[in-house]
Amino acid sequence: MSESQMPTTRTRVVREAERGVYDRETVYRILDEGFLCHVGFAVDGQPFVIPTSYGRKDASLYIHGSAASRMLRQMKEGVAVCVTVTLLDGLVIARSVFNHSMNYRSVVILGKATLVDDPEEKLTALRTLSEHIIPGRWDDVRQPNERELKATSVLRLPIEEYSAKIRTGPPIDDAEDYSFPTWAGVMPLETKAGEVIDDPRLDASRAVPQYLKNYSRR
Amino acid sequence: MSESQMPTTRTRVVREAERGVYDRETVYRILDEGFLCHVGFAVDGQPFVIPTSYGRKDASLYIHGSAASRMLRQMKEGVAVCVTVTLLDGLVIARSVFNHSMNYRSVVILGKATLVDDPEEKLTALRTLSEHIIPGRWDDVRQPNERELKATSVLRLPIEEYSAKIRTGPPIDDAEDYSFPTWAGVMPLETKAGEVIDDPRLDASRAVPQYLKNYSRR
Repeated sequence: MSESQMPTTRTRVVREAERGVYDRETVYRILDEGFLCHVGFAVDGQPFVIPTSYGRKDASLYIHGSAASRMLRQMKEGVAVCVTVTLLDGLVIARSVFNHSMNYRSVVILGKATLVDDPEEKLTALRTLSEHIIPGRWDDVRQPNERELKATSVLRLPIEEYSAKIRTGPPIDDAEDYSFPTWAGVMPLETKAGEVIDDPRLDASRAVPQYLKNYSRR
Repeated sequence: MSESQMPTTRTRVVREAERGVYDRETVYRILDEGFLCHVGFAVDGQPFVIPTSYGRKDASLYIHGSAASRMLRQMKEGVAVCVTVTLLDGLVIARSVFNHSMNYRSVVILGKATLVDDPEEKLTALRTLSEHIIPGRWDDVRQPNERELKATSVLRLPIEEYSAKIRTGPPIDDAEDYSFPTWAGVMPLETKAGEVIDDPRLDASRAVPQYLKNYSRR
């Protein structure tokens, strides 16, 4: 699908259309800040939505493991999925109930996820996933062996049909409500890392690596 | 559906079955800590997953507004949905790539969402939603008027067919990996509220209300 055909009728943002964003750079920025997605797929008309981690490399999104398994059981040449990534940035607190909102950046990708069969691509995909979540970790741990690679399924979803939706800024109240006697504004929300917790079985000589210090997705 | 029939074959946790939790109290605790869900529904076999806020009252989950609209366009007597709520608690950092994981608490609810038509239930549902996200806010703002109520659609999903999945604690490594020369443990993650930001048009006499101070979902 060429960029000029974006968005499709399926990905065009209909409600609050001014919040729709379709450029690839913005979509990649959102995908690269997040690492948790919700994968939707349907079985006999019943949708399922499963949270799982992901990694991105160029125009490919990779997911792996248990999230793939329920889908994989019935998939032959690709399963129609919707992958949604949502970054919640704040509560938008207005003067009327109706105008309360949230600040967020979300991406929806539609398409067919296919099994990554090629051993080299599979290893690259797993490295992409690992480095997406904790850059620097892959080279510091025991690598996957044959048995583990076999037990892991990896799906690739091309980032071709997508849209982003973004809301930022203060509440937008009705003109006559600005005098309503209440506070209004934004409460920022952010996913933050706390102090790391040593594994109880950690060898005391192992220090927390540099790449885990000041961990932040921004 | 009686409690004794839980989980159903559709909600039983298959992968890492020991993480499956089916008691209503645990599920409610997760639902009450979160307020953002991902709603999945299928249109002609294509799944869509839309992030939206929700509120819970007893065994009913309510969603409203734009998330409902794409679903509502084609719905007559209820649309099959999957609502998933995920609380991400940490990165589980193991000694092998394979045993990396996440600490999380998630809930999946399957069922048919139906439109809330009754004006009184609709208002109650909107209040439930508002108080779920910011307890105390409803009575402090301008109430919905007829036009706004008409413009808002509210869906009710009964919390009948559900499961939770929970992972906590340190990494579980293979026995032979515990001597691998790397750090291992957990990096806690939490969604935190920052300092509130006044609306630029805020009347200077309006102070931040008590219920917004020390806002936390825990």
